Amino acid sequence: MTSNESSARPALGVHSEVGRLRKVLVCSPGLAHRRLTPANSDDLLFDDVMWVENAQRDHAAFVGELRRRGVEVVELHDLLARIMAIPEAKAWLLDRKITADRVGIGLVDATRAYLETLSPRELAEYLVGGLATGDLPEDFRSPHLALAREAAGAREYLMPPLPNTLYTRDTTCWLYGGLTLNPLHWSARHDETLLMKAIYTFHPDFRGSTVWWGDPELDGSQATFEGGDIMPVGNGVVLMGMSEHTSRQAITQVAAALFRRGAAEHVVVAGMPKLRSAMHLDAVFTFADRDVVTLCPPIMDAVRTFSLRPGDRAPGFDVVDEGTTPFVDVVAKALGLPKLRVVETGGDAHAGERRPWDSGNNALAVEPGVVFTYDRDTLTNALLREARVEVVTIVGAELGRGRGGGHRMTCPLVRDPVGL
Amino acid sequence: MTSNESSARPALGVHSEVGRLRKVLVCSPGLAHRRLTPANSDDLLFDDVMWVENAQRDHAAFVGELRRRGVEVVELHDLLARIMAIPEAKAWLLDRKITADRVGIGLVDATRAYLETLSPRELAEYLVGGLATGDLPEDFRSPHLALAREAAGAREYLMPPLPNTLYTRDTTCWLYGGLTLNPLHWSARHDETLLMKAIYTFHPDFRGSTVWWGDPELDGSQATFEGGDIMPVGNGVVLMGMSEHTSRQAITQVAAALFRRGAAEHVVVAGMPKLRSAMHLDAVFTFADRDVVTLCPPIMDAVRTFSLRPGDRAPGFDVVDEGTTPFVDVVAKALGLPKLRVVETGGDAHAGERRPWDSGNNALAVEPGVVFTYDRDTLTNALLREARVEVVTIVGAELGRGRGGGHRMTCPLVRDPVGL
Amino acid sequence: MTSNESSARPALGVHSEVGRLRKVLVCSPGLAHRRLTPANSDDLLFDDVMWVENAQRDHAAFVGELRRRGVEVVELHDLLARIMAIPEAKAWLLDRKITADRVGIGLVDATRAYLETLSPRELAEYLVGGLATGDLPEDFRSPHLALAREAAGAREYLMPPLPNTLYTRDTTCWLYGGLTLNPLHWSARHDETLLMKAIYTFHPDFRGSTVWWGDPELDGSQATFEGGDIMPVGNGVVLMGMSEHTSRQAITQVAAALFRRGAAEHVVVAGMPKLRSAMHLDAVFTFADRDVVTLCPPIMDAVRTFSLRPGDRAPGFDVVDEGTTPFVDVVAKALGLPKLRVVETGGDAHAGERRPWDSGNNALAVEPGVVFTYDRDTLTNALLREARVEVVTIVGAELGRGRGGGHRMTCPLVRDPVGL
Amino acid sequence: MTSNESSARPALGVHSEVGRLRKVLVCSPGLAHRRLTPANSDDLLFDDVMWVENAQRDHAAFVGELRRRGVEVVELHDLLARIMAIPEAKAWLLDRKITADRVGIGLVDATRAYLETLSPRELAEYLVGGLATGDLPEDFRSPHLALAREAAGAREYLMPPLPNTLYTRDTTCWLYGGLTLNPLHWSARHDETLLMKAIYTFHPDFRGSTVWWGDPELDGSQATFEGGDIMPVGNGVVLMGMSEHTSRQAITQVAAALFRRGAAEHVVVAGMPKLRSAMHLDAVFTFADRDVVTLCPPIMDAVRTFSLRPGDRAPGFDVVDEGTTPFVDVVAKALGLPKLRVVETGGDAHAGERRPWDSGNNALAVEPGVVFTYDRDTLTNALLREARVEVVTIVGAELGRGRGGGHRMTCPLVRDPVGL
Repeated sequence: MTSNESSARPALGVHSEVGRLRKVLVCSPGLAHRRLTPANSDDLLFDDVMWVENAQRDHAAFVGELRRRGVEVVELHDLLARIMAIPEAKAWLLDRKITADRVGIGLVDATRAYLETLSPRELAEYLVGGLATGDLPEDFRSPHLALAREAAGAREYLMPPLPNTLYTRDTTCWLYGGLTLNPLHWSARHDETLLMKAIYTFHPDFRGSTVWWGDPELDGSQATFEGGDIMPVGNGVVLMGMSEHTSRQAITQVAAALFRRGAAEHVVVAGMPKLRSAMHLDAVFTFADRDVVTLCPPIMDAVRTFSLRPGDRAPGFDVVDEGTTPFVDVVAKALGLPKLRVVETGGDAHAGERRPWDSGNNALAVEPGVVFTYDRDTLTNALLREARVEVVTIVGAELGRGRGGGHRMTCPLVRDPVGL
Repeated sequence: MTSNESSARPALGVHSEVGRLRKVLVCSPGLAHRRLTPANSDDLLFDDVMWVENAQRDHAAFVGELRRRGVEVVELHDLLARIMAIPEAKAWLLDRKITADRVGIGLVDATRAYLETLSPRELAEYLVGGLATGDLPEDFRSPHLALAREAAGAREYLMPPLPNTLYTRDTTCWLYGGLTLNPLHWSARHDETLLMKAIYTFHPDFRGSTVWWGDPELDGSQATFEGGDIMPVGNGVVLMGMSEHTSRQAITQVAAALFRRGAAEHVVVAGMPKLRSAMHLDAVFTFADRDVVTLCPPIMDAVRTFSLRPGDRAPGFDVVDEGTTPFVDVVAKALGLPKLRVVETGGDAHAGERRPWDSGNNALAVEPGVVFTYDRDTLTNALLREARVEVVTIVGAELGRGRGGGHRMTCPLVRDPVGL
Repeated sequence: MTSNESSARPALGVHSEVGRLRKVLVCSPGLAHRRLTPANSDDLLFDDVMWVENAQRDHAAFVGELRRRGVEVVELHDLLARIMAIPEAKAWLLDRKITADRVGIGLVDATRAYLETLSPRELAEYLVGGLATGDLPEDFRSPHLALAREAAGAREYLMPPLPNTLYTRDTTCWLYGGLTLNPLHWSARHDETLLMKAIYTFHPDFRGSTVWWGDPELDGSQATFEGGDIMPVGNGVVLMGMSEHTSRQAITQVAAALFRRGAAEHVVVAGMPKLRSAMHLDAVFTFADRDVVTLCPPIMDAVRTFSLRPGDRAPGFDVVDEGTTPFVDVVAKALGLPKLRVVETGGDAHAGERRPWDSGNNALAVEPGVVFTYDRDTLTNALLREARVEVVTIVGAELGRGRGGGHRMTCPLVRDPVGL
Repeated sequence: MTSNESSARPALGVHSEVGRLRKVLVCSPGLAHRRLTPANSDDLLFDDVMWVENAQRDHAAFVGELRRRGVEVVELHDLLARIMAIPEAKAWLLDRKITADRVGIGLVDATRAYLETLSPRELAEYLVGGLATGDLPEDFRSPHLALAREAAGAREYLMPPLPNTLYTRDTTCWLYGGLTLNPLHWSARHDETLLMKAIYTFHPDFRGSTVWWGDPELDGSQATFEGGDIMPVGNGVVLMGMSEHTSRQAITQVAAALFRRGAAEHVVVAGMPKLRSAMHLDAVFTFADRDVVTLCPPIMDAVRTFSLRPGDRAPGFDVVDEGTTPFVDVVAKALGLPKLRVVETGGDAHAGERRPWDSGNNALAVEPGVVFTYDRDTLTNALLREARVEVVTIVGAELGRGRGGGHRMTCPLVRDPVGL
C-alpha cells in the first residue's frame, strides 16, 4: 500500500454511535448458511434454517441502501479473497486452520494440498462457508476418511462453517482510534476472529491498525468480548454490556488498556440480567439520535450499572457501583446531556415480550436521527417516527433468523464524532 | 527425591487391564462435591447433588478394600499438598490459575496474596474444591468484588470447583511405559489435567515420566482424549473408544506417537454410536478376567471397528476398516485369544436399558478374575459370579451419581502384564 | 337454510387427494397469533412468533389464488360468527367453555355476562383468539381476579388462544361421504375440535353430516387422530400415518367404522419413525398428481406398512404386515396403478435434511397435476415442474413458522374423485 | 361390611397435620419401579431409575417404624387385591381400564380374557405395575400385536405403570371428616386416582366415606388438585398451595364445597412461585410440632398469600389478598397461635439450594414433636433436634429419587386433632 492510497481514505476509527457512518464491514449470507440444517443449527448457534437466496437478496438490498446513503461498504469474503492472493497471508492462515488437532494427522497433507489448488476467491468461500470431507475431490481422498466419517456421523467438516460471520459486529470493535480483536464466547465462533486477525495482519487497508486488546490465538479462558455488547458513544465514554458473552474479565482488561492509552475516560458497564444466553446489550438498547435511544423496559429495568474510570492504584482504574440509578441516566450524564429521550419498544405486554426477537432494538444509525431497522417491528418503527427519527427498513423475514439486526450485521470502521 | 527411594518402588507403567494392580491414583469426594447444587450441577457435569458424607464413607471403604488386597493407593489431594510445599511448584500452578483472564485484572493480586497465606494442604483443598469470592477473608476484598458479584449472579468462583476429579481415570492414561496428559472434552474440566501436569512436573514420585502425548496448556481444539475410553490390554494392543469425548484427531496422534516410539503395535478403535454425550467405552465394555469381558449388547452392537497399525507412509500408520466384524472378535484376535467370553449385562429389555446407569460395565479388575463393581447392579454381578469371576462390591448410592464406577474412579499407575 | 340453497351446493364429501377441489375450509391468522410470545409459543405449539400482518397478507393471497382457481373457500371465524348468532348454539358452546373447571368458580358468572354483551363476530374472534383476564372490562371484574393473576404469573386466559386453528386440516377429516371429529393429541388443542363440533351441530351448511367417528367431548385417552396423517386417496382406500399424534387406538376404531359402514375397503397404515413429535404423514408424503407423489426419502424409508381390510371376526378387520414392501408400492397397488412416480425432495444431504422444515412435502393439489407449495422450497418446486406438475407458490416467510404448509392449512370439504 | 367391624375402628378423618397419626395409606415400591428406565423415566415423572430391592427394604423399614410407633398402616396393593376379589369391583375397574380407546379395538377381548385368569393379588400387581404387551401369554396374542409393537417402538403398555403411586399423599386428601378424590395434573397419573375411586366405592373399610369434591372420571380440565399441596392444620383451617399442580380452579371449588358443608371456615392459599414444575407446598413447608414448621426461605419468601372465607354472595366465599404479610404469620394467626417457630432449612447458600432435593422439608409428623425425615438432610435434622423435635430418619438413597419424602409417601386416613 502506498501512502497515496492511504491518504485518499479516512483513517479507520469510530467516534460515536450515531455520527455519520462512513465505512462499514458486512458479510453476505452464503455457503455457511446453506450448510444449516435442523440437526446442526443449534451447534452453529442459529435458531432456524434460512432461505439463503432470499437472505442474500435482502442483505444485498440492505447494503445497496447503505451505499445509496453514502456509506462505503466492504464485504468479508472480498477482504479474504484479497489476502488469500498474498502467499504469506495464505500460509499464515492455513498453518493455523489445517492442523493435526483440527483435521486429524492423516488428513493434513491432502486437505492442504487441495486448498492450494483453489483460487483466492474459492478459498475465501470455504474459509467462511466451511469445508466438508465430501468437498474433497477424489484425488485428495485417503483411507483415513473412513475414520472421519465414522467419527462424525454423516458429515465431518475439515474447516467448520462460520454462519455467524453474518454478524460482523461481534468479532472486532473499533473504539475511537483503535480496535479490539475479540475472543468470542462460543468456541464454535473462535475462528471468525482468526479470519479478522489475518485481515488486520495482511490486508493493505487494515494492517498497521492500533489494537487495544485481544488475540484470538490465545486461549481467552473466561475473558470473552463481543461487539454486540460494546458501544463507543463519544465524549470519551464506552458502554459495555456485561453478559454471558462479554465477561467482567475482558471488560476490565479493555477498560484498563483504554485508560492507559488515553483512549477513553469512562466505561459504563451494564450488568445484564441472566435472561437469555444470546442477549447482547444492542438487542435491548440502541441509539437512534444524539439524545434518542430505544430500549426494552423489562430488561433494562433489571440492569445494574457500574462506572469504571482511570485510577492511580493497580490495576489502574476505579469501580463505582451506580446503585439504583437507571442505566440511561448514567449514560446521559456521561454524555453531558440533560436526559435521553427513550422510545420504549412494545405496546402492551404481549408486544413487549416479542420485541427482542423482532430485533427492534437492534437499530443501526447512519447519521444522527436516521436508522435502519427490521420491517417486522412495525410498532417500534412507528414510535421512532413519532420521535422524528427517519426509519429505513430492512426485510427481516430471513435475516432475522439468527437473532441479529442491522446493528449486529455491521461493523463500523469509520464513523464521525456526533458533533460533526 | 533420592535414587534410593525411587529404587524401592516399581517403575510406573500399566501393561494390561486385568493383570495385578499394584498402584493406583484416586481422588476423595470433598469440597468440590459440597459445592454441587441443583442449579450448578449441569455446568459441573454431575447429574445430581451428592450426600458428601456418605460418598466419602463409601469411597473410603472402596479404597480400604483396594489396600486390603495389596494395592498401593495414592490420593490426589495428598499429591497436591506435597507439591504445594515446593515453592516453584506453587508458583508454577498459581501463575497459571490466578490470571487476569481467569479471575479478572482487579482481583489477581488479592487472590494470589490470600492463597499465599494458606498451608499446602489448605491450598490443595481449594485447588480441587474451588475458591468462591465469598471464601476471601475481609482483608483481601476489594471494590472490584461488587462487579464480580453482579457478573456471576449469586456466586462467582475465582478458581472453579473440579468435582470430576473423582474420576481420575480421565485425565491421564498410562499406556505401557509412558503416559498421556489428556486434553478433556469439556472446558470446565481442563484444569483437572493442569493439576496432573503440575504433579508430573514437580512431584518426586512422578517427575521424569515419559509423556507420549498431550499438554493441557495447549488449546487442544478438537484433539480431546479421555481415559475412560482408553484401555492398554496387553500384547502391544491399545483399545480406544472414538466418542464425543475422545476424538479421531487425538486418537490418531496418540497412535502415531505410540508406534513411532515402539510402545504399541496395534490400536483398535471402537467407533461409538452417538447415543449419549457422557458415554465412554468403559461404560459399556470392561475386562473382568484374561478372557472375560462385560458388555452392553445394544450399544456394542452398534460399534464400528477400525485397526490402526504402524505404516511406512506419512503419517506413519495404516487404517483398516474392520467392517462388520464384531469389536470383541477383533479384540480377541489382537490378544491372540480364540475368543472372549462375554457377560452380557442386563436380562430383559428393561434391565438392559438400565445397565449403563448402574455402571455395571464399569468394572475394575485388581487381578485376573477379581473385579470391583457397584452393588446396585445385582444382575450383572450375579452373571459375573456364574462366570467364576470374584466380585467385590462398592456401595454406589452416592458415588454413582456422577455416572462413573470403579473403573473411572481409578487411574492405574502400576499394573502387571496379564501373563505374570 | 332452505332446501333450495342446499340443492345449489354439492354435497360435502372428499373422494381423493388430487381430484378437483371444490370447497375448502381455512382459518385466517389473527388475534390468536398476536398472542404468541417467545415465552408462550412452546405451550401453544408454535416454533416461533409470527409477524401477523404479513401472515394475514400471505394467507389472503393464498385464499385469493384458491378462489381464482374455482375453489369455494369458507373461513372458520365466519362460520363461528354465523352460529354465534343462533342462541342455542351460543348457549351450547359457552356452557362448555365457561365452566368452574376452566375459568374458576368465582369468574364464571362475570365472564359469561361479558361474553353475552358481544356481537357474534366479536365472540367468534375471542373463541379462536382467546380471552385474557385483561380483556374483561372494568364492570365485569371481581375480587377473584387477584387470585387468577397470582396463579398464572403475568397473564391468565379465561378462554385459551387457539393459534393452531390455522391448520384446519387436523380437526376434521372428510373421508368420502362422512367425516371424523378428531380428538387431537395435545390437550391445548382440544377446543379446536369442540368449535368444529359446534359448527357441525348448528351451522345450516354443515349440520346433518354423517360422522364416522370421534367426539371431542369424550376424553379420548390414547385414541387421538389428526387430519395431517389422513388421506382418502380414492378407490376405497384411506392412508393413515400412525404417529405420536395419530394412534393405533384411533386408527383401528376409524377403520372398523369405515368398513362397517361400507365407506372404505382398505386402510394403509404408515408406521412412522419416532423422529420428531410434530411430524405428520403429510409433512413427508403428499400427492401432486394421479400418479405423482413427493416424499422425503430418509423418513419414508423408515416407514413400516400395514394393511387393514374388512374381516369377519371381531373387531371386524384383519391386519396384514406388509413387511419390507415400500409404502409407495403398497399405495400404488391399492390404487390399481402400476407404480407411483416419486419426486424426492432434497438434493444433497444438507438440502434433504432441511426439507420437512420448508414444508415442501406439504403440497396441496387443487386438481390433478396442480399443487400449491411454499416458495421457500425452490428445489422441490423445480423437481415438481420437471415432473410436469404445475406449481403455485405460497409466500411462506410467516405462515411456515407453525410448521405446516398448504396441505395442513386447508380442510377439503368437497373434492371430486380423481377419475372425473 | 357389618356395623360391628366398623365400630371396632376409628372413623376415617384427618383433623390436623401433627396430631397423633392413627392410620395411614402407603404403597410399596415394586413392578412399576422395575419398569423405570433412563428412556422412560421422564414420561413416568421420575428423575432417575431406582434400585428397587433397596427401595423396598428402605420402605419396609419406614413402615415398620411407623407401626412400632402405633400407626396402623394399610398398603395399596393389599387394598386392591381385596377388592379384585369382589366381582363387581373387578368388572367396574376393568371396564374402565381395558377399552378400545386405551388398548385398541383389536386387543380389548384378549387383554380382558387374560386378566380374568389372574388371581386378585396378581391383578393388583399389574394394576399398579402396568401390563406390557410382552406380558401377555402366547394364547392371548393376536395379529394386532404387530401393529401395537410398531406404534410404540420397543414396548407398549396395555395398562400403564403407575410408579407415582409411591406418593399416596397426592391422590386423595382427608380434610377433617371427608375426602377429595383428586384429578392430578399429569395425565400419566390420572389412573392412580381411578384406583382410589375403586377402593372408596367397593372396599368395606372405605366405602360410604363422604366425598367433598373430585371425580377422576370427569375430564377435570384445569381443575387439578394434589395432596402434596394440601394441609388440614386444624381449627377449621386448610392450607392449600396454588401451584402448577394444584390450580385456582380446583382450590376455589374445594373451598366452596368445604364452606357449604360446614367442614372448614378458612382456606389459606399459598401462591407458589413458578420455580419448578414438581414443587408442592410440602416440599418447602411442613409442620414438625404444634407450633414448629420447617421451611425453605428463598421459596417461601416468594409466596403470596390469600385467605378464602365463607361469604354470602355467589360463589359462596370471599377472597382476601394478604398482601405482604408472610405466609407463616397468616397461618399462625389462623391457628390462634402468637407465632410459629421456624426451622429454616439450609445453612449457607449452597446447602440451602440443595434442600428441596433432599426432601428435608417433607417431614411427616406422627404426633406433636415427632417427625420422620430423610437421613440425607443431616443439617435440617440437626436443627429440628435443637428445636426439641424428635427426628426418626428414613433411608433416602433410593426412595428419594422420585422427589418425595415421608410426607408425600403417606396418605393419613385417621389423625387426631392437635389438641388431644
